[in-house]
Amino acid sequence: MTPDPTRIEDLATPALLLDEAKMTRNIERLAARARALGVSLRPHLKTAKCTEIARRLGGGMPGPITVSTLAEAEVFHAAGHDDILYAVGIAPQKLARVQALREGGCDLTVILDSPEQAKAVVEARVPALIEIDSDGHRGGRRAEDPALIEIGRILHGTECLRGVMTHAGESYGVRGEAAHAAFAERERCAVVAAAEALRRDGLPCPVVSVGSTPTAHAARDLTGVTDLRAGVYMFFDLVMAGIEVCKTEDIALSVLTTVIGHQRDKGWVMIDAGWMAMSRDRGTAAQDVDQGYGLVCDVEGRVLDDLIVGSANQEHGIVSLRPGADAALPDLPIGTRLRILPNHACATAAQHDRYHLLPAADGALKVWHRFGGW
Amino acid sequence: MTPDPTRIEDLATPALLLDEAKMTRNIERLAARARALGVSLRPHLKTAKCTEIARRLGGGMPGPITVSTLAEAEVFHAAGHDDILYAVGIAPQKLARVQALREGGCDLTVILDSPEQAKAVVEARVPALIEIDSDGHRGGRRAEDPALIEIGRILHGTECLRGVMTHAGESYGVRGEAAHAAFAERERCAVVAAAEALRRDGLPCPVVSVGSTPTAHAARDLTGVTDLRAGVYMFFDLVMAGIEVCKTEDIALSVLTTVIGHQRDKGWVMIDAGWMAMSRDRGTAAQDVDQGYGLVCDVEGRVLDDLIVGSANQEHGIVSLRPGADAALPDLPIGTRLRILPNHACATAAQHDRYHLLPAADGALKVWHRFGGW
Repeated sequence: MTPDPTRIEDLATPALLLDEAKMTRNIERLAARARALGVSLRPHLKTAKCTEIARRLGGGMPGPITVSTLAEAEVFHAAGHDDILYAVGIAPQKLARVQALREGGCDLTVILDSPEQAKAVVEARVPALIEIDSDGHRGGRRAEDPALIEIGRILHGTECLRGVMTHAGESYGVRGEAAHAAFAERERCAVVAAAEALRRDGLPCPVVSVGSTPTAHAARDLTGVTDLRAGVYMFFDLVMAGIEVCKTEDIALSVLTTVIGHQRDKGWVMIDAGWMAMSRDRGTAAQDVDQGYGLVCDVEGRVLDDLIVGSANQEHGIVSLRPGADAALPDLPIGTRLRILPNHACATAAQHDRYHLLPAADGALKVWHRFGGW
Repeated sequence: MTPDPTRIEDLATPALLLDEAKMTRNIERLAARARALGVSLRPHLKTAKCTEIARRLGGGMPGPITVSTLAEAEVFHAAGHDDILYAVGIAPQKLARVQALREGGCDLTVILDSPEQAKAVVEARVPALIEIDSDGHRGGRRAEDPALIEIGRILHGTECLRGVMTHAGESYGVRGEAAHAAFAERERCAVVAAAEALRRDGLPCPVVSVGSTPTAHAARDLTGVTDLRAGVYMFFDLVMAGIEVCKTEDIALSVLTTVIGHQRDKGWVMIDAGWMAMSRDRGTAAQDVDQGYGLVCDVEGRVLDDLIVGSANQEHGIVSLRPGADAALPDLPIGTRLRILPNHACATAAQHDRYHLLPAADGALKVWHRFGGW
């Protein structure tokens, strides 16, 4: 592959663009909310997977973070982060890698929701949060589940009990600040009740952690909560805009693409960003406005009304007007550069190995690398 | 990240497994068909993106191939392939990279379907195939379109006209050998008619290229065709099994995963393969049997009846019985290893940077690297 070019005109397409000013605004917005709510913010790096972005989240310092893979924990620890939550239920086979990180000076905490996992974790002397189910979305125990105390007791025997955590994944399915505030209160009630149940049994519960991007932006009161987590907020995306957590103009991530053909009778414009560049994520399909595989902008990032990537093959996107659109198809000759806003930033970013930063300072385009794997 | 382990028991999950014996059988099956049909096979490397696999397709030699990105052309040319078709409509901005490859000794051909592209290609002295539309799937011209001759004449002026090509993408939407044979005949008729139209105008058309995995396996006669292309056939997947191009047991690719939790009242088993490991591809959703995010097998690769990955978050898969299933949920304790067959091999493989080869010779697991990017 050719070296990274320094001007946007020279970028090979498709390419992932990151608007640094928008990202900075998004980061500051949630940091201010966390301060106002009196909780510590522990950003989730599953979306960004980039050490430069991780450092910006801590105001230039490597702060406390959440990760979704041990590969992330290893890379971010090497970059100076020493307070990390691995927020996917621990498999016993992964404890050797967790221990290696801890022995290397990383205060890595895991999560779990079963006595079997608690026993394995205790044997490995690894601290853990108990996962609490606040909305039926995925894993976790309810505050009233007797297994919660059983797990707490197993962990406490070796001082491995750090606290409780939950994630309101179902909040992505509702729209508007009021609905998200209700989910935030549900998160808070679920973990605070679990923490109280543990404490009533004489068990310590210093960490009480909640978070999802919608609830983190809408929570009105986080009494009893210590930690707030969120991931996609630094970039935002069409799914978040569709449920009104952000506006389309807050989306910091886009895919630069080039027009490569037309089927004029069908109103199709072919581009070189297919699902390999956008991901197969169709997160807006279930929302009020289906954005196809992404919303089309001109090269400056201005949304072209009602123009979406209606379908996608591996390396081809087919741009067309949204069904029922009033607008006319603009003239987009072969070679025209466009930018596509993604449905789901986590999924789209994962298709790329680098961010090209906008705006280009002095015409020179900065590149930040991102990593993948497990 | 840790170095590659040599035993399957030690693999960090999720991990991509490739059954070499099944792949070899799949490769030989289509090679035999191409020989019987009297056409040259030009495998598409967009699925595999791996130099070891590319070499096996040529019986140990770097043979003629098809690619979907210039990054693939560069990597495979460096690995010895010097006859490459880049089968995505050319953007003028990409011609400098194409020329650099050609000057380096790679006979790289591009595709196009407009006079604008033809003029750019002629200026760069790059040989091209004209894309023909055989089924309304994507780009291309029909044989009777006057633009076909116009494009042919522009290209012929500088001896850049190599021939015609088509891809029956719509064949993925129909099931069974007879339906695919009908699409194969449609592909053949469309390109042969286009080749004849060019020849009637005094234009040369040495290459007449067709292909998609379903049509390549079903074609009964390829008179007039010179080249056959196909990509996913080396691995196969649930989408191909769903339309009866292969059987489930022919699928050479799977994702190794570990059980990390349960929600027993809901019949959910949580695994550490979410959409990051499987991709967001839901290609079987529109088929008769919806396989969710993948079909669940035990660690030996035996299908567990009616067990699918019913939903997926980034690093979590939720395994459950297929709706209406007769079977009982098997006991799968935390730490159990499973294998998941993918909906779409191209999309799932793209989420990984290496293949772990099965069977492990002498217990030692071979690793083949794959690449991405553009």
